[in-house]
Amino acid sequence: MKRVDYSNTKITGGFWAEKQKLVREVTVKAVYDRFFETGRFNAFKCDESSPVKPHIFWDSDVAKWIEGVAYLTKEKREYGLEEIVDGVVDEIVKNQDENGYFNSYFLVRDKDKRLSNRDWHELYCLGHLIEASVAYYESTGKDKLLKAMCKYTDYVERLFKTERSAPYRTPGHEEIELALVRLYECTGEKRYLELSRFFVDERGVDPEVIGDWTHPENSQSHLPVREQTTAEGHAVRAVYLYCAMADLALKYNDESLKNACEKIFDNIVNKRMYITGGIGSSHHGEAFTVDYDLPNMLAYSESCAALGLALFANRMLLLDNDSKYSDTVERALYNGFLSSISLSGNEFFYTNPLELMPYMLKRDTSVKAQNPSGFPITRRQRVFECSCCPPNIVRFIPSVANLMYTHSDNTIFVHQFINGKTEIEIEGKKYTVEQETSYPYGSQVKIKVSGGNIRVGVRVPFYNQGYTGKTEKGYAFFDICGEGEISLDYKFEPRFVYANANVLHDANKCAIINGPLVYCMEGCDNSAHLRNIVFDRDAKITKSFSEELNVPTLKVEAEQLVSDESLYSFDTRKEKIQATLIPYFAFANREECEMTVWLNRGN
Amino acid sequence: MKRVDYSNTKITGGFWAEKQKLVREVTVKAVYDRFFETGRFNAFKCDESSPVKPHIFWDSDVAKWIEGVAYLTKEKREYGLEEIVDGVVDEIVKNQDENGYFNSYFLVRDKDKRLSNRDWHELYCLGHLIEASVAYYESTGKDKLLKAMCKYTDYVERLFKTERSAPYRTPGHEEIELALVRLYECTGEKRYLELSRFFVDERGVDPEVIGDWTHPENSQSHLPVREQTTAEGHAVRAVYLYCAMADLALKYNDESLKNACEKIFDNIVNKRMYITGGIGSSHHGEAFTVDYDLPNMLAYSESCAALGLALFANRMLLLDNDSKYSDTVERALYNGFLSSISLSGNEFFYTNPLELMPYMLKRDTSVKAQNPSGFPITRRQRVFECSCCPPNIVRFIPSVANLMYTHSDNTIFVHQFINGKTEIEIEGKKYTVEQETSYPYGSQVKIKVSGGNIRVGVRVPFYNQGYTGKTEKGYAFFDICGEGEISLDYKFEPRFVYANANVLHDANKCAIINGPLVYCMEGCDNSAHLRNIVFDRDAKITKSFSEELNVPTLKVEAEQLVSDESLYSFDTRKEKIQATLIPYFAFANREECEMTVWLNRGN
Repeated sequence: MKRVDYSNTKITGGFWAEKQKLVREVTVKAVYDRFFETGRFNAFKCDESSPVKPHIFWDSDVAKWIEGVAYLTKEKREYGLEEIVDGVVDEIVKNQDENGYFNSYFLVRDKDKRLSNRDWHELYCLGHLIEASVAYYESTGKDKLLKAMCKYTDYVERLFKTERSAPYRTPGHEEIELALVRLYECTGEKRYLELSRFFVDERGVDPEVIGDWTHPENSQSHLPVREQTTAEGHAVRAVYLYCAMADLALKYNDESLKNACEKIFDNIVNKRMYITGGIGSSHHGEAFTVDYDLPNMLAYSESCAALGLALFANRMLLLDNDSKYSDTVERALYNGFLSSISLSGNEFFYTNPLELMPYMLKRDTSVKAQNPSGFPITRRQRVFECSCCPPNIVRFIPSVANLMYTHSDNTIFVHQFINGKTEIEIEGKKYTVEQETSYPYGSQVKIKVSGGNIRVGVRVPFYNQGYTGKTEKGYAFFDICGEGEISLDYKFEPRFVYANANVLHDANKCAIINGPLVYCMEGCDNSAHLRNIVFDRDAKITKSFSEELNVPTLKVEAEQLVSDESLYSFDTRKEKIQATLIPYFAFANREECEMTVWLNRGN
Repeated sequence: MKRVDYSNTKITGGFWAEKQKLVREVTVKAVYDRFFETGRFNAFKCDESSPVKPHIFWDSDVAKWIEGVAYLTKEKREYGLEEIVDGVVDEIVKNQDENGYFNSYFLVRDKDKRLSNRDWHELYCLGHLIEASVAYYESTGKDKLLKAMCKYTDYVERLFKTERSAPYRTPGHEEIELALVRLYECTGEKRYLELSRFFVDERGVDPEVIGDWTHPENSQSHLPVREQTTAEGHAVRAVYLYCAMADLALKYNDESLKNACEKIFDNIVNKRMYITGGIGSSHHGEAFTVDYDLPNMLAYSESCAALGLALFANRMLLLDNDSKYSDTVERALYNGFLSSISLSGNEFFYTNPLELMPYMLKRDTSVKAQNPSGFPITRRQRVFECSCCPPNIVRFIPSVANLMYTHSDNTIFVHQFINGKTEIEIEGKKYTVEQETSYPYGSQVKIKVSGGNIRVGVRVPFYNQGYTGKTEKGYAFFDICGEGEISLDYKFEPRFVYANANVLHDANKCAIINGPLVYCMEGCDNSAHLRNIVFDRDAKITKSFSEELNVPTLKVEAEQLVSDESLYSFDTRKEKIQATLIPYFAFANREECEMTVWLNRGN
């Protein structure tokens, strides 16, 4: 099984064409501006006299932005952006240590502390710089950054693997592991793949912690990775590790790694994932917690973690073509990830809670600490001090076509429904696959295939109510003779969803999804406090549209709980109302207000 | 209007006789043992060579215990306990500074920092020592401690009022204000009353903070007290202040203080009080927050605060005989306060949450901090580092009869229904009032009055379903000629209660009360997760009894939400079950399990 690279697809219109346009026209520049203002670009000059102190992980922020620019450039050259990248690359090469080492913080400050602490993100930064260098090389043919990162990687290989002279065993924040696989694929140098496997194999052999405030679980260092069966610790670190494990399981045909990936994946999607595809239930350690612990208002659900889950699930499709993986890619993509960017394209969420009661952040009126309980913020920001999420969006949306197709020797698999035209080469034969769909809003998908005889497996999503044919692991198969068109309608309609009875925070609640989209209620569309609006199981749902947000909305029959003035009363009353819901990804684009995904139930 | 002192009542049997027996036989000794073990008693020796470092507020812990011993002693001498008290008193007098100052911490450590910081609890300790000294004198006639505390108070008066040479204006933790009123009543020395008024008048004139982490609100120092209209800040400090304000309003016939008390009281009971009478919604600052903010699992609801609310409400009855005050006394007494002591009498809650999901304290598995979100503990403890609550119980239960009666020149008011015989002297005439009742479990009250012609006003509680006669501010009036018996039956039955729609944490929930008792569900009586049990408005409730806990219980028709294995599903199912509820005060007396007061609603 092989992935069809994003670069083979031209997205031709519809939902993702618009999002890509937004990233090209707004987001990539907005993120650049914020990063420039905060000194992240100047930091590459490694000017010791600069008054701005860089952060140990700033390189990774810019690296992800460069990777995004590379993807944008692949489709259409953006000379202004390319020049910025070239300038950064020049600085990196100029300031790189003779031994290959580069980190814009440690080249200027705490020089004697290089690679001395596994939580200081240097290998994490290198990982993102590797990914950027590969993407930039593949888009532009420019190999200056690639060569520089190979040199740095060679140094890391010597220190950690050959000599074992580094003071720690594995990086505290995973990322380099998956980057090294990409570096191997780009360069053909097997030892980069070997180094990736080395880091993955070393992890958890002796439990290592980060800082003095975590258990080894926080950095997935509590057990050798092959013995891990649950998703633990820092959610972004976790899914980046799992991505590398899935990559290595494929490259080495490693059954024990594959088994671990499968168990961990099942643990996530069956017990530790929000309905939005968000993961990480606690802001303490930005971490997974325990099974079924999915508080809505206290959710962390970091944008990078949802994105990482999509990357992990997408990789699992290469090990086992099961729609549980592609359904999860879709869930995270359209909900927990997409909520991280404003409709205007220039503001971002780091955390993506499933319920907002804005007053809760301001309830502690008698102490100076603001929001001491750490409830997630209610408004998207233009930049964060720890700004990993915005540039992750910049690289993810332009390369979203990576999620669309895989193929084997005789079958093309269609995982995500995105308008576009794709060239796929299988055993030297070129096929063209064209999708026409109004996904995620509409349920029809037309897939035109030409180029020869080929089998096509199309995902039948978990919410399908239209396709009634046979499926195998959630895929419907069609034989194309020369050329042909597959026309499917999943006929999804808005439906109530209920959480497992062990999810105590969703007890006596329901949610509404319509196909891939999770919906939510916002205070600005509904006059009552949202928790006082209750929904019967058979409530009538009508489709509508918001001109203001340019998204489809739902009008739902509901009842509003009404009380008299007293604090506690023997009386209770309900009044019929109509509630308005919007797609979750569109929340918090108007004034600050309440929001909830999970709705209180009537009967 | 005058209060009938507890010492005029002999509680003759029933609920409170049992509780008083428990305190006499178990609690007073258990608290002594823990305080002895932790060094609180030895601290009075002020031995600089002691390896045990006292805490700045330890004196107050022992003072409250002494006050409790005094009340127990009034009814029946407890020579063992009295000897302990006499020993402590000897040490206090021996070690007291020449100027009168006494604090077992600052006499030994940080001697140069005496009375230098308003958050260091010295005047709070003095307040409790004053209360203890008055109670002990009134019970035993021994005035050694009383004289010592007068001397200390004289010093404080000079420093704070006469010379104004103290480095702060008002104590950071109120208590001395109400204690000074008692000292005045006991000694007849008006200047103690004046000093109390001084401290109350000074508060908030210039905003003062405690520590560097609070706003002036936390110590009720944000506004002159007469301008305060809402309950703010540290809930215990707050209600102790309000007690003093109510006392002074009465003593000085001070309308503006009375008005402030009324507004603050209404703010509490209409917007900031748990259904249990618990107050203080946040552990950050142990504080009141904003209107209608009453989270159940994050509730602080300190035992001392519920007790203090009862004391405040009880004082308000002297200003205005309105059953809203006596109903509140009862609510706090039987629920938020009484939950603080185990049925065994030797274990205590400091915080009294309205919902427990024990797993939430252990969810943060990847970081070392335990329970970093600060969820309330789930089990009563034998002692706390900050152990203000256990000795508050020791002094409150033996003096519970303080809550029963007040009188004017021509009327006796019956506020709380407690089995007992009380002598009341009005204008030189002696009346005897005998109550026979099975309160709080039964709804019948017989009140025998003898001694002459007198009017009797009896509280008709807010949950009354039996008495249908006239009431005035919630009291029914009866004229007794010579002697007579008033027989009332409030015919209360278990009923569903609903919170105001602005209490978002109780939305779509109901609670069950039966007369004065709030009920709760515990995991050990119910097989499902409690949030999955839903109750229809018209659910049938049957009364039962728990031999194990020796309390009445309720069996309630309910439905249990059932799910399949999947995390999210389109299906939902309910199964009929019978839920068991117990009185809230009896929760957490068996194994650790879930608990909730607020129940999810069905229809």
